[in-house]
Amino acid sequence: MVGKRSSRDIRSESRLDVLHGLLSAGTSTRNELAQTTGLSVATVATIVQELRGEGLVVDAGSSALGAGRPTTMLRVNGERGRILGIDVAETYVRAIVFDASLEEVGSVEVPMDESLPSASSVTESIVRAVDTALRETAIDRERVLGAGIALPGLVSAEESADAVAPRWAARNVEVLRQLRQRIGLPLVVENPLKAIATAELWFGRGRTASSMVIANLGTGVGAGIVLEGKILRGATHSAGEWGHAVLVLDGRACRCGRRGCVEAYVGAPGIQLTLREIAPEHELADAAQRDFIEGLASAHRKSGGDPVIEEVLSRTAHYLGVALGDLAAIIDPEVLMLTGWTAWALGDDLVEPTKQELQRRAPVGATTPIDLGVSTVRGSSVAIGMATLAFERFLGDVGLSTTRLPLAL
Amino acid sequence: MVGKRSSRDIRSESRLDVLHGLLSAGTSTRNELAQTTGLSVATVATIVQELRGEGLVVDAGSSALGAGRPTTMLRVNGERGRILGIDVAETYVRAIVFDASLEEVGSVEVPMDESLPSASSVTESIVRAVDTALRETAIDRERVLGAGIALPGLVSAEESADAVAPRWAARNVEVLRQLRQRIGLPLVVENPLKAIATAELWFGRGRTASSMVIANLGTGVGAGIVLEGKILRGATHSAGEWGHAVLVLDGRACRCGRRGCVEAYVGAPGIQLTLREIAPEHELADAAQRDFIEGLASAHRKSGGDPVIEEVLSRTAHYLGVALGDLAAIIDPEVLMLTGWTAWALGDDLVEPTKQELQRRAPVGATTPIDLGVSTVRGSSVAIGMATLAFERFLGDVGLSTTRLPLAL
Ligand SMILES: [Zn+2]
Ligand SMILES: [Zn+2]
Repeated sequence: MVGKRSSRDIRSESRLDVLHGLLSAGTSTRNELAQTTGLSVATVATIVQELRGEGLVVDAGSSALGAGRPTTMLRVNGERGRILGIDVAETYVRAIVFDASLEEVGSVEVPMDESLPSASSVTESIVRAVDTALRETAIDRERVLGAGIALPGLVSAEESADAVAPRWAARNVEVLRQLRQRIGLPLVVENPLKAIATAELWFGRGRTASSMVIANLGTGVGAGIVLEGKILRGATHSAGEWGHAVLVLDGRACRCGRRGCVEAYVGAPGIQLTLREIAPEHELADAAQRDFIEGLASAHRKSGGDPVIEEVLSRTAHYLGVALGDLAAIIDPEVLMLTGWTAWALGDDLVEPTKQELQRRAPVGATTPIDLGVSTVRGSSVAIGMATLAFERFLGDVGLSTTRLPLAL
Repeated sequence: MVGKRSSRDIRSESRLDVLHGLLSAGTSTRNELAQTTGLSVATVATIVQELRGEGLVVDAGSSALGAGRPTTMLRVNGERGRILGIDVAETYVRAIVFDASLEEVGSVEVPMDESLPSASSVTESIVRAVDTALRETAIDRERVLGAGIALPGLVSAEESADAVAPRWAARNVEVLRQLRQRIGLPLVVENPLKAIATAELWFGRGRTASSMVIANLGTGVGAGIVLEGKILRGATHSAGEWGHAVLVLDGRACRCGRRGCVEAYVGAPGIQLTLREIAPEHELADAAQRDFIEGLASAHRKSGGDPVIEEVLSRTAHYLGVALGDLAAIIDPEVLMLTGWTAWALGDDLVEPTKQELQRRAPVGATTPIDLGVSTVRGSSVAIGMATLAFERFLGDVGLSTTRLPLAL
């Protein structure tokens, strides 16, 4: 049978809403929280009481607005503890330390320069990143409420293999086994797309949109899908594999082994291939990925632009518009967001022509304008999202949340 | 803010679950219903009491299994009233009369032979179909609990225009206005894809799958998406517009005005175009749509098959496999279903090679087999789905359900 929500789940969601409202407002009164969450003042008061009981919410002075008696301002108690968000990428591990109000306290990055790191090597890098981060920020391990680790290629709780980062997939089972023994902290593990969607849900447009698709553009490409305030995980934990949907039937070879995938056209290497198709001798044709994208952005912004660059951006917007249009046609989200270093670097140079392409492809006479933008959650949205999931797990551990997390060790 | 579920909504869902369980079992005891719904026996007993109070559930004798005292068998009371499910297609209006246990009692079909019927003409056809159906089944209007009408091109409650059946869109506002005055029955209106998904949810694989995508293959093509037992409607009520997702960038012209849409390859006219590309002089090249699809099926089943037919089926399975694969990659459903007259006619001739294509395209090393099949909900699944929605509305009217229906007049 389908999983059902109980009254207990509803209370749990209300608590998350109150925390959510308090985190984004910074400080807030009970009445203001009732307004932003749509809960009754009595319910908010009960929840605040529970959160104070766990030391998660504290007073932040009082406000004496108007003629009434002063009302107590509240804030999330950052000093309640520390939370780690860990982004395991293909070439590095980054560990970011957050306080309990999810403000960044410090971070470290540990390189993994092997091209095909072993499970032990991945585990070592994670353990080293965690230890270094705690030492550099002078945090006792006992003060850490939890850690969230984003592992690429984590497809399902049963750890089936994966098309996107196949060299990771088989290893993850072993990495998880080793981490369970080595890390000594309450852990949650997710894949990076779900982490990005979580960050956007808590700290970006997801706060106000009822449904959202967030497309990540970097070396790889993928999407996080948020429906009614929840991340769509999928039956095998792999919803949002939009990067390997087909854009061009039997088109360009993709690193997943198939042909014509979205990623092969709008991933950074794909965009560079578009340039090489137009002008094989162009000075950016053989640049390193990030230099190439930065070069594209700065060349476009120069006056008297390079026609090759303009053509690359125009074709990329065409590919991206069509691919996002398909995603939008299937999900019909309220908001479409772009994130990832390619989206950040190109910004409106990419968003504006993509929006035009989307508008051209919208249903005839559709009146709803396309709501497409670049995420305002910057820095490591993967680490931010993972810290948020670790925070949710902590709330579960102290009995304040019933959220079922996919992989909590 | 995002819509929240209350305890009242949970009780409402539990009632639907009990009805659901009783409808599919035919007759059942309270204990059996507790098992199939996952609710406590006490909760089931309370709900049965409420449903009996409305005359919706009645005793169906008693069973004396084992040594215990006999337990009462229950069934849905079909005689509680009648429900109409109405399918407004491009060339006809079909009205099916169901009893309150959603068994078909009778049906009529009224042709609309104009190629571009006016709003008044659509309304007339609907009214005539309803009147004829009630007369032929000798039903008093007072005994009708409600009617559900599927209108193609119904995009959102605000009735924006539509790409799929553009000649319908503008007219729907006027049709709805006229129906409200003419029909004299509690009405719900939905688009056909959502009706099909509802039928599958209540009477097909949706009963046991936690998530499902159901692709409708006929002249047009589209998908219904079911997540956690609910139809995904989308921000503008147009989720599932998979038929106009791009399969071949800048490919075949589609009747929506764009190019390369899925529908242009796997809609019946698209499949026929594939045949004409291979063998323009083939005897099926100019057959009427339904004759063409039937001809394809019977030619394939003959021994010593026609190589042109085999090539058409093989290319169609390739197109369909890729297009379904994209849908599956984004949604990651537990179950993929095919429905519609093309799927029913071709059956395993299409399902088996499509499944192979999907398997070829699955992530490297993926262990979960593709669960693809043809829906067992036959007849007019559109009308069945609409009758189900009308039934849900009736439950709402008598205070037994809080389901929010998109357009209830
Ligand atoms: Zn690929
Ligand atoms: Zn189309």
